[in-house]
Amino acid sequence: MSRVYNFCSGPAALPEAVLVKAQREILDWHGVGMSVMEMSHRSKEFVSVLESAKQNLIKLLDIPDNYEVLFVQGGASTLFAQIPANLTPGYESACYLDTGVWSVKAIKEAAKYTQVNVLASSKDSNYQTVPDFAELDIDESAAYLHITPNETIGGLEFDELPNTQLPIVADLSSTILSRKIDVSKYGLIYAGAQKNIGPAGVVVVIIRKDLLARSQDSLPTTWNFAKIAENGSMVNTPPTYSIYLANLVFEWLLEQGGVDAIEKVNVEKARRLYQKLDSSPLFANKINANFRSRMNIPFTLADESLEKAFLVESEEAGLKTLAGHRSVGGMRASIYNAMPMDGVVSLIDFMNAFEKKYGY
Amino acid sequence: MSRVYNFCSGPAALPEAVLVKAQREILDWHGVGMSVMEMSHRSKEFVSVLESAKQNLIKLLDIPDNYEVLFVQGGASTLFAQIPANLTPGYESACYLDTGVWSVKAIKEAAKYTQVNVLASSKDSNYQTVPDFAELDIDESAAYLHITPNETIGGLEFDELPNTQLPIVADLSSTILSRKIDVSKYGLIYAGAQKNIGPAGVVVVIIRKDLLARSQDSLPTTWNFAKIAENGSMVNTPPTYSIYLANLVFEWLLEQGGVDAIEKVNVEKARRLYQKLDSSPLFANKINANFRSRMNIPFTLADESLEKAFLVESEEAGLKTLAGHRSVGGMRASIYNAMPMDGVVSLIDFMNAFEKKYGY
Repeated sequence: MSRVYNFCSGPAALPEAVLVKAQREILDWHGVGMSVMEMSHRSKEFVSVLESAKQNLIKLLDIPDNYEVLFVQGGASTLFAQIPANLTPGYESACYLDTGVWSVKAIKEAAKYTQVNVLASSKDSNYQTVPDFAELDIDESAAYLHITPNETIGGLEFDELPNTQLPIVADLSSTILSRKIDVSKYGLIYAGAQKNIGPAGVVVVIIRKDLLARSQDSLPTTWNFAKIAENGSMVNTPPTYSIYLANLVFEWLLEQGGVDAIEKVNVEKARRLYQKLDSSPLFANKINANFRSRMNIPFTLADESLEKAFLVESEEAGLKTLAGHRSVGGMRASIYNAMPMDGVVSLIDFMNAFEKKYGY
Repeated sequence: MSRVYNFCSGPAALPEAVLVKAQREILDWHGVGMSVMEMSHRSKEFVSVLESAKQNLIKLLDIPDNYEVLFVQGGASTLFAQIPANLTPGYESACYLDTGVWSVKAIKEAAKYTQVNVLASSKDSNYQTVPDFAELDIDESAAYLHITPNETIGGLEFDELPNTQLPIVADLSSTILSRKIDVSKYGLIYAGAQKNIGPAGVVVVIIRKDLLARSQDSLPTTWNFAKIAENGSMVNTPPTYSIYLANLVFEWLLEQGGVDAIEKVNVEKARRLYQKLDSSPLFANKINANFRSRMNIPFTLADESLEKAFLVESEEAGLKTLAGHRSVGGMRASIYNAMPMDGVVSLIDFMNAFEKKYGY
């Protein structure tokens, strides 16, 4: 068996140590004679897995007591609708920032539930920068302000939060656990698992408890944040195996030293790759240097006719899934927590060799 | 490692051969150097897995061309709401049959979307029988008629379908692939995976194509059957690993000889267990003999004070999760496709020994 470096934006690479542990336990978890995926979700064994996942996430993100951690079925795209369905009753509108493809999708779903007020958009810059927050005209009577702090396709990331009394709702699908955040500054954080958490099929929701009061009984039960919270994420059978795998990732991350430690590695991985791109005669990244994503690094080739060769040869070199999103083209390297420094170094080495081969 | 016999109603036992195969492939699927759970859902590798899952299901259930097979995120409980949300626009009501706990839950969710007309209920019999279909007064202008052909908690199953022109919508979560069905008689079949298909987190939906026209654009995109169908179950990132495991189960079932072959085994497993219950001075099943479930067999003890001993001693004997649902108490043996005959024989042997030990 030879494992490759997988630069996919999601579903994405998982730590090899996590897969090895899952492999060992798949037929018989902790000597109980069955797989986690065969266990009753209400068994004491699975309840302990779910509780451990919750507590490990609380530890990793230093989540305050006035927040609930929920494991919700679906993907972040489901939450694009589920969030306004839960949070807008009693309000006339919700504020959104448009910083790329995923913001636009979130806005489109929200418009099915409420009047959406798009405060600012960086579309005119081709999503290469982030709007100036000082110029935002925030309607403080809105239900919340939604942001997408990392755009997986565009490769645009921001850390600063808008100045508002509104609950900030943030799609952290591609940055959760990659950098330190102050959870208390958010009303609701959500993150699809398949980038920095685990396999696709579960979404982590971290919600300030007072916001649970907004969920109406008329909601579908499995969509109702208040009922999901009341029932400890077991309002129906949760995606048990996905939660188990997420917990293995949380345990792995704690072993690496937690978010602070992995953030240092992430900063260095991104620094090296951007340095290569900025000094290259062939490769380039066009995003405003203040807002470059640490997780998703798109790049173009000065000679587009070399793109195909780049993709074919990088695949052959064991560097997989470097094609950009089909909507934007070009290349993209997604370097989440599970991508080791060696993977980034291998990519840079390959880029150097590729330049040389093609006369750059 | 010692595997037990797991009688849980769901999440439930999976075929050991499936887990062994998943174990072998978890770090490196077919030599591509990564796990299925790390693959882009749009990669040719994962697309081949999804297509294989679809084709294997079509083969197993002999699904006609005018039906779509969808893999939807969530559980059957999500579908309780998602189905009326998709199918009731343009109609004033939907008809439901009440044959137990899961029917009631489906009715409760549907009432959030439409006027629910409960045609008949077997509640008065304590859900020990099925209403007489000849006496149903079906409103043929309704959106559909919903049935729950197997009640996992009550242990009540029926095979005959009501006589109607309405599309029949059936929750086959606990019987799909356990017995032959004529798909062409249904409008929509849905089944949560965690009983006869695979791990929790994905629902199989088989929908007659003409019904897709009812889905409105105002639905959440990830809930819209028409959009899910158009996008080949990839309207967003699907639960890729769950679909892969489901496909391993489908392949396993084909190796067993398909639904016809497994149905024979299921009939015999149920026959032996009911025979034991009917001839026992201690154990009994109270369901009308015409409507006894082949999959979920609840039973009681003549002396309730022996229940605790039964549960403790059966656990020690490697016969796990025999407690009845917390809402009804008693015992329950769920014997889905993955439960081998040996498991049922072991349970009967244990019951015999238990009777002897306690003087029955």
